[in-house]
Amino acid sequence: MTEDLDALAKELDRDHVFHSWSAQAGLDLPVIAGGSGTVVWDHAGRRMLDFSSQLVNVNIGHQHPAVVEAIRTQAAELATIGPATANLTRGRAAERILSHAPAGFQKVFFTNGGADAIENAIRMARLHTGRDTVLSTYRSYHGNTGAAIVATGDWRRMANQYARGHVHFFGPYLYRTEFWATSPEEECERALHHLERVIQSEGPATIAALLLESIPGTAGILVPPPGYLAGVRALADRYGILLILDEVMAGFGRTGRWFAFDGHDVVPDLITFAKGVNSGYVPVGGVIISEPIAATFDERVFPGGLTYSGHPLAAASIVAALDAMQSEGIVENARRVGEDAIGPGLRALEEKHPLIGEVRGEGVFWALELVSDRESRQPVGADVIGRLKKELVTRGLLPFTADNRIHVVPPCVVTDAEVEHAMAIYDEALTSVEGDGH
Amino acid sequence: MTEDLDALAKELDRDHVFHSWSAQAGLDLPVIAGGSGTVVWDHAGRRMLDFSSQLVNVNIGHQHPAVVEAIRTQAAELATIGPATANLTRGRAAERILSHAPAGFQKVFFTNGGADAIENAIRMARLHTGRDTVLSTYRSYHGNTGAAIVATGDWRRMANQYARGHVHFFGPYLYRTEFWATSPEEECERALHHLERVIQSEGPATIAALLLESIPGTAGILVPPPGYLAGVRALADRYGILLILDEVMAGFGRTGRWFAFDGHDVVPDLITFAKGVNSGYVPVGGVIISEPIAATFDERVFPGGLTYSGHPLAAASIVAALDAMQSEGIVENARRVGEDAIGPGLRALEEKHPLIGEVRGEGVFWALELVSDRESRQPVGADVIGRLKKELVTRGLLPFTADNRIHVVPPCVVTDAEVEHAMAIYDEALTSVEGDGH
Ligand SMILES: Cc1ncc(COP(=O)(O)O)c(C=O)c1O
Ligand SMILES: Cc1ncc(COP(=O)(O)O)c(C=O)c1O
Repeated sequence: MTEDLDALAKELDRDHVFHSWSAQAGLDLPVIAGGSGTVVWDHAGRRMLDFSSQLVNVNIGHQHPAVVEAIRTQAAELATIGPATANLTRGRAAERILSHAPAGFQKVFFTNGGADAIENAIRMARLHTGRDTVLSTYRSYHGNTGAAIVATGDWRRMANQYARGHVHFFGPYLYRTEFWATSPEEECERALHHLERVIQSEGPATIAALLLESIPGTAGILVPPPGYLAGVRALADRYGILLILDEVMAGFGRTGRWFAFDGHDVVPDLITFAKGVNSGYVPVGGVIISEPIAATFDERVFPGGLTYSGHPLAAASIVAALDAMQSEGIVENARRVGEDAIGPGLRALEEKHPLIGEVRGEGVFWALELVSDRESRQPVGADVIGRLKKELVTRGLLPFTADNRIHVVPPCVVTDAEVEHAMAIYDEALTSVEGDGH
Repeated sequence: MTEDLDALAKELDRDHVFHSWSAQAGLDLPVIAGGSGTVVWDHAGRRMLDFSSQLVNVNIGHQHPAVVEAIRTQAAELATIGPATANLTRGRAAERILSHAPAGFQKVFFTNGGADAIENAIRMARLHTGRDTVLSTYRSYHGNTGAAIVATGDWRRMANQYARGHVHFFGPYLYRTEFWATSPEEECERALHHLERVIQSEGPATIAALLLESIPGTAGILVPPPGYLAGVRALADRYGILLILDEVMAGFGRTGRWFAFDGHDVVPDLITFAKGVNSGYVPVGGVIISEPIAATFDERVFPGGLTYSGHPLAAASIVAALDAMQSEGIVENARRVGEDAIGPGLRALEEKHPLIGEVRGEGVFWALELVSDRESRQPVGADVIGRLKKELVTRGLLPFTADNRIHVVPPCVVTDAEVEHAMAIYDEALTSVEGDGH
């Protein structure tokens, strides 16, 4: 019976569901029927350790009871209402979000997810400055809609280049430096020099905004060297350009801080969020707006909007998620587990496994960069990643992989024991693939 | 206490919530705390008849118990899961949606709302055809993201023209014909001729798709003359161009049919949906894909996607909403109420009120076009609409207004008695504004 449900789920999926970023033939996706914390299971009750947090969004873990209850309560009261209303739950969600933002942020524009948050942040920046160009990095992902996908730097942009006004530059990434740097200080300084040269060469007066993930996520969890984000802020100020920090993946606990930019000595002009704000329990995203930009639209019509802006079910889940993260110390847990368990665990794997070229990250936001040769840093091919993925899944761990990397990105509520268990699985899987003679 | 909650909702909204399509200063939005069927209320229990269906999306009415219950049940089981999984509820939602589509549609790509449904339909059309240009009408709205906003024809495009590959043409609209037509037959024939001339002049080999709302909604509920959509299909076939019908507002019951194009003797290649599919109880939208286009992506990677594609909470609400609409005859109710009550009621108002220039629509999808002079058809100004809106709200009716029009768009579950009550309110409000000497 439960086996039948798993089979039925697979059949309906194969026949009728069209999937993101994939060729559709031959997809063989795991059935997930339920979950709790860091664990998910299928209809037959086969459990998996979720070290992907799905798309690095289930920060509070699966089925947090307070968030589930808030959704159930709001559904019974008022499941939906249009944006041209005043709704108490929506106002409270905005208030909660702003309580974690730096001083000078007073308003939130709600969207349905990350991509349309980026779209609207870009719109605000263009209208506030009267300029067109948006600079973003090659190693980035900002979403799949018109402007967001062209702001994106990775391969996903390439089939979708229908928006104008986007220019890309290189960010810091010492392990594969674009600047012939040999230390974090040098990487930082040279990356800032490169950015300034791009600004000067494009013409500062044409540039509306610099758009950056505070920590580029899908591109490899590229924690910027100390001083980089502050240096970008200084460049933005010097040339009168706005700074948009994309916190969709890195924000709301992932790094062990509320925002990834906290502690980087930087305050952006616009902050985009989604994912961790409510762990994706209801689709939502948005833009946190600094006062000068909000004021631009006091008397002037903001030409953007959407049917589900400020959806009450999403709002209720935000209030509950942020309250629980605060009262249960979930952000602190992410920081502590990163320092005490994940970091040391991954570094021990690095010592043992020649496949691992670099370990980097913080909080519950880590990458293992896999190389066929540590000297040349040649990335492993898709075959190695495919085999590793299979070995991990077989051993009961749902991994996140991207290019030649494994991202170790469990929910912020992950325990030391779960990390220990996961490390043993990563270890075995790496050993097995190395034994195949990758 | 409850009055305090209304005041608090207004205060939080004014201070912290940034609103769609508006200048933010001086917004005075109604507080909505709850609802049922066609009625909504604030914290103090002041009731309003919702003849807007919010943004023309709450087709099943507010707080339908079966949809609320489905959301509550799914929330308790599994609130969220990533798209790269097989999920039974998601598969069932796709199956339900396809059961209402014409033969030859086998797959659904889920998005978060209408705009990203359009984005992905355009993406599919471009990749399937290898061509860039998308033709859409000036009188249209397709959403606020990069490509969707430039496909949009109305003023909202104008501040947002950052996407290439879009060309606009005029659709049929006999009351304000662009073609010097004097009958529906002539309007149809000439609109098709105009479209064919645009296709020929742009170059058929450059055109990926024709994108049309089956019935342009926000632009004025412009029911196309008989034969128009079939004629567009014939042009698409003649020139090897795909036809995307945008059913975001018109679909899932609004017209008294499952899809607005049903009965228009037309089968599109791609159908976009959102709103009515689950009445917006959880943010969702998507693309229903015909087999040849789905097959294009069997072996080729589809370069689009989003974190919340196929969200289980949205899926559960779709299954419940479509099942309830079917078993409770809600679509039939929309048709019957349109024929028996709304149509006759609005025509009686037209007889009485010189402000009304035209009444048009079907199902629960009607427009009153207001003019200062029936002869010249001069649209009334924003001041008249503003006063009317105030008169309607004062009398307990939440209206939908756009340009010089009132859209009469209650939920599909509206009763004859509610329509009668609403007609009396529209009558009084029109009388009052006419008495002011508009
Ligand atoms: C940094 C960043 N920005 C934007 C997005 C897009 O978010 P969504 O998938 O909700 O559109 C993502 C998604 O992974 C992301 O990681
Ligand atoms: C026909 C049509 N298409 C697309 C959209 C955009 O939908 P959303 O607001 O969910 O992005 C709308 C919204 O009103 C619409 O009416």
